[in-house]
Amino acid sequence: MKVTLLKENLSKGLNIISRIVSTRGSLEVLGNILIKTEKGRVCLSATNLEVGINYRLGAKVDSEGAITVPARLFSEFINSLPNEKITLELNGDTLISKSENYESNIKGISADEFPLIPEIKTGKVMDIKSSDLRKAILLAAFAAAIDDSRPVLAGVYLKVDGSKVTLAATDSYRLAEKVVNVKSGKTKKEELILPAKTLLELARILGEFKEDLNVGVYLSDNQILFETDGLDFISRLIEGQFPNYRQIIPESSDTKTIVPKEELLTAVKIASLFARENANNIKVSMKSKGVLEVDSGGSQVGQNKAKIKAHVEGKDGEASFNGKYIIDVLNNLSAKEVSFEISGKLNPGIIRTPNDKGYIYIIMPLRN
Amino acid sequence: MKVTLLKENLSKGLNIISRIVSTRGSLEVLGNILIKTEKGRVCLSATNLEVGINYRLGAKVDSEGAITVPARLFSEFINSLPNEKITLELNGDTLISKSENYESNIKGISADEFPLIPEIKTGKVMDIKSSDLRKAILLAAFAAAIDDSRPVLAGVYLKVDGSKVTLAATDSYRLAEKVVNVKSGKTKKEELILPAKTLLELARILGEFKEDLNVGVYLSDNQILFETDGLDFISRLIEGQFPNYRQIIPESSDTKTIVPKEELLTAVKIASLFARENANNIKVSMKSKGVLEVDSGGSQVGQNKAKIKAHVEGKDGEASFNGKYIIDVLNNLSAKEVSFEISGKLNPGIIRTPNDKGYIYIIMPLRN
Repeated sequence: MKVTLLKENLSKGLNIISRIVSTRGSLEVLGNILIKTEKGRVCLSATNLEVGINYRLGAKVDSEGAITVPARLFSEFINSLPNEKITLELNGDTLISKSENYESNIKGISADEFPLIPEIKTGKVMDIKSSDLRKAILLAAFAAAIDDSRPVLAGVYLKVDGSKVTLAATDSYRLAEKVVNVKSGKTKKEELILPAKTLLELARILGEFKEDLNVGVYLSDNQILFETDGLDFISRLIEGQFPNYRQIIPESSDTKTIVPKEELLTAVKIASLFARENANNIKVSMKSKGVLEVDSGGSQVGQNKAKIKAHVEGKDGEASFNGKYIIDVLNNLSAKEVSFEISGKLNPGIIRTPNDKGYIYIIMPLRN
Repeated sequence: MKVTLLKENLSKGLNIISRIVSTRGSLEVLGNILIKTEKGRVCLSATNLEVGINYRLGAKVDSEGAITVPARLFSEFINSLPNEKITLELNGDTLISKSENYESNIKGISADEFPLIPEIKTGKVMDIKSSDLRKAILLAAFAAAIDDSRPVLAGVYLKVDGSKVTLAATDSYRLAEKVVNVKSGKTKKEELILPAKTLLELARILGEFKEDLNVGVYLSDNQILFETDGLDFISRLIEGQFPNYRQIIPESSDTKTIVPKEELLTAVKIASLFARENANNIKVSMKSKGVLEVDSGGSQVGQNKAKIKAHVEGKDGEASFNGKYIIDVLNNLSAKEVSFEISGKLNPGIIRTPNDKGYIYIIMPLRN
């Protein structure tokens, strides 16, 4: 193998793929990335057996070949180099990198030992804009469970139905659902569950591309492929039945407040400081005179109360929630104003934005 | 106590003092900061029994008083508030903070339980500009030992002699010495040793002040006071004899190279990636044809070589050093060019900058 490429392009490719690499694993080759020539380009691949990524970049290919090298060393080395042309050349299993002032030999492992990343090129489910997909992931996936004692709850439910695509996640204490319209008529009805961590990684990667790209989504028995602009992102699916969450979405609410997002976020963050000893329990009170109050406190530290001017509809009401769940959603919403709805102390609260009818976030109340 | 002050000023004060607070301690009150009124101002104090800080800020004082409150909670609370006026008022041992939209009660501990921070106002040693003091600390203190198995090596040696002030530190593998001229004629001959960590904290604090201030330095038996602009910074001294380090400073060298600092830093950082399995051992070779080479490698990962165009004086030479020690000094130097001197494989190397005759950094060589 002998290829010449720009440091900048190689760095971008390594940043895209190298977070997928297994950092602790029994199999040494899983800590490596695969570099191989492919139709006049260079293809970089990484996998942790849950997710596989291929990313192709432009290069001058003088001779074909493939090798795997340690991901961390190679990425740190390339990222540290000045921005110039780099030639990569194989000598047995050693990769020789040369640029104007630097020459290194890195010991690799034969490409034959690298696990095969499955190819899925049939079973197209839909086309979606990368910006829409990324936004939907960011608005839904954070609500999934962190631990996977119930594997489906560590996943994001994805439903494709005509031109409507739904992403939803819940850890049973809160629920986020985002519906996106896709333009393409080629969509195919499907319901599946993907690991939330994997989707968040895909959102990070889509954010590395400056342009808004078309993402093709393909499905096989237990794998899904997201394909765009030289990138293949393949993930396993989670088996099981996602809870029928739609039944817990309230149809109406007793009290509705519209408040500036940043003010609510500041008030809940401050309230959380005082709620540490109290399982993060904070109380919101909505008053028809136009005030949203956020209260918290514990017997050890003291108490705190914030008042936010708000547009309040309906009757006065109050309810208690885990402050973290409010902070999480506000951190992911980009709107300037949010609406916060409650129906007494025993029913779920709802947070959404006035301008996005496709989004809803539900939080279960805490007993005070 | 009832005082009114600006959030911005209170935040600045809390950022200055609150890193001194003991995070894990047997005595709960050491996790608190002291807030007290003092001659029409508010004085904030923190101590971890090694260092004590007082910082005074402007306030409207309606009634006198003092209280201690948990440093972390109070700082996070104040830092989160919008930028407006805050009123602090005592009710027993509870501190009530009020601003336009926020009201909190924080449970405190009586000011009587706070350890006394010693007052030293006699024994002036010198006056020094805060920018000179800060720079000298940053150029010397990083070379001190991290662990304190030999307490004097975890310290910075400070010598005042006429208008010359010397700071030096060594962990026995490398040595940094910075000499600063002070203008004031009031200096008093003294030699002492201060904890390096404490001095680095002082440097951080001096960096928080935008202006270049005069710092008065005072000495008592076993304590030192740095005083400036409402700030008292009091540290204990380290007892013992600092090694007679001047004898290891070479008087001349066989080979001297002048190179761009950033290029050398990049080359040594890259070399360090390949030197991990090899105790960070990297080799520098200076060639009279005008090249500085940086080499490293290990049997597991591979090898690396960088070439930097350099101005080389004297005979060709090479020597091996711990790459971390080279990176440390380059990270602290602000010059564009540095000089690197060696005298064969067995003698110390010297790094300094062409324009600062007051600074020298010595690194012991490694056997290759």
